Amino acid sequence: MVVGIVGLGLMGGSMGLAVKNLEFIDKVVGIDHNQSHCESAVSLNLVDEIVDLEGLKQSDVIFLAIPVEGIINSLKNLIDIPPNTTIIDLGSTKAKIVENIPTQIRKNFVAAHPMTGTEKFGPTAALKNLYKDKIVVLCNLDESGEHQRNTAWRIFEEIGMKIVTMDAKEHDRHAAYISHLPHAISYALANAVMAQEDAKNILILAAGGFRDMSRLAKSSPVMWEEIFKQNKKNLLEAMDHFEEELKRCRELINNEEWESLHNWMKDANKLHDIL
Amino acid sequence: MVVGIVGLGLMGGSMGLAVKNLEFIDKVVGIDHNQSHCESAVSLNLVDEIVDLEGLKQSDVIFLAIPVEGIINSLKNLIDIPPNTTIIDLGSTKAKIVENIPTQIRKNFVAAHPMTGTEKFGPTAALKNLYKDKIVVLCNLDESGEHQRNTAWRIFEEIGMKIVTMDAKEHDRHAAYISHLPHAISYALANAVMAQEDAKNILILAAGGFRDMSRLAKSSPVMWEEIFKQNKKNLLEAMDHFEEELKRCRELINNEEWESLHNWMKDANKLHDIL
Repeated sequence: MVVGIVGLGLMGGSMGLAVKNLEFIDKVVGIDHNQSHCESAVSLNLVDEIVDLEGLKQSDVIFLAIPVEGIINSLKNLIDIPPNTTIIDLGSTKAKIVENIPTQIRKNFVAAHPMTGTEKFGPTAALKNLYKDKIVVLCNLDESGEHQRNTAWRIFEEIGMKIVTMDAKEHDRHAAYISHLPHAISYALANAVMAQEDAKNILILAAGGFRDMSRLAKSSPVMWEEIFKQNKKNLLEAMDHFEEELKRCRELINNEEWESLHNWMKDANKLHDIL
Repeated sequence: MVVGIVGLGLMGGSMGLAVKNLEFIDKVVGIDHNQSHCESAVSLNLVDEIVDLEGLKQSDVIFLAIPVEGIINSLKNLIDIPPNTTIIDLGSTKAKIVENIPTQIRKNFVAAHPMTGTEKFGPTAALKNLYKDKIVVLCNLDESGEHQRNTAWRIFEEIGMKIVTMDAKEHDRHAAYISHLPHAISYALANAVMAQEDAKNILILAAGGFRDMSRLAKSSPVMWEEIFKQNKKNLLEAMDHFEEELKRCRELINNEEWESLHNWMKDANKLHDIL
């Protein structure tokens, strides 16, 4: 089986590293519009070789590891793939993508969101075990062909992922709260702090807390701009709820309602029972 | 030299572990209003023995590793210590504490904020290397006695800390942005997400991002309620600035100004150059 990877950054490059040693994978090929990414991907052994679009279409499985608007735009170039080809996208949004799959290749397509990543990007960010022991959410799986469902399932299982299935719209609502909102907050925190504090004091006072809270603010603007665009409605709703909580915190501090503030913090502590 | 530690949780317990093997420390004694913390601290070897208030006052160095309101309240019990005793507080706020040191023991007192910690608390959270290679901010050091300055400096250096000096009011303003604001945000995020999402979906979709962003929400309400109380004014100002940034993000998404959103994210990426 030949695997083709579109986009040789963190997600695509790590997928190359993850699948290349699987017994049933004969070759991993890659494509990236950034020429230096192609060169790095080969020299870092993320893929065996770089191909053009025609070469890509000869792959048995095509991973789309590019920003979510790019995923939609790339599909028009793939409508003439063979019936048994499996296309798997790795985008962080799912509803807009599944809505925009051309009918001709709907059965070829498996919509996936691996719940893993780092704030780093580009081929040098690729990690061999990025996917291992992590969850992948597969959406609207009944719209995919049986062969493609089985192929995607097998690959994700073989690289050590735990598979969860979900409706794409449900996924996007959950992801807005649990993934996209935290990114928006982290970007806002980094900008607020850098506007008020100089680098020296940030370095002195940044213990683990600020480092963790601002890590996501280093994420790729290209990738996150498109996620926010596709998940606009859910994200704005999640931001509303977050702002209400922060407003509550502010009011309790402002009114010096320390006991209620204490209880509000204790409510947040309940996260212990989940994570 | 005998070191006495008031409060045998994460910070105090870790201080016990850090100092007990220093060549010039003969004994580490501890005191905690929670009897089970005292028992754990002894069985975990965080301190050599538990003492009462009179025993504590015979220590050469007394660390106050308790919540910041408790630090202020405890000082009235220490006004009759010998002139050469050094009291070092480890609180996360500094201005209110230095304002409230009784004149009789002002020279005995060194105000310190070690920039380290975890979201865990209690004696079992103590870590041997919590302080190693971390920064400690010493505030208003010219108000401390020379012997006490030297003693504190020596201990912090010997346990591997990098020492920075700062005015207490300046410290509190910087800490509001870089430490206290991130805690408020994390509590608010945890509460917003748990109100909207069930435990199952949080577990499925929580990748490293949400885990990092919500970690601080597990922090001790007792400790943070008192920090927010003492640093109210600075924290509310920091929250204002953060909310403005989040509002900007929301407006850019709402108005679909994707290029500006991209640039706003790129600004946040500049944190790379600092941390």
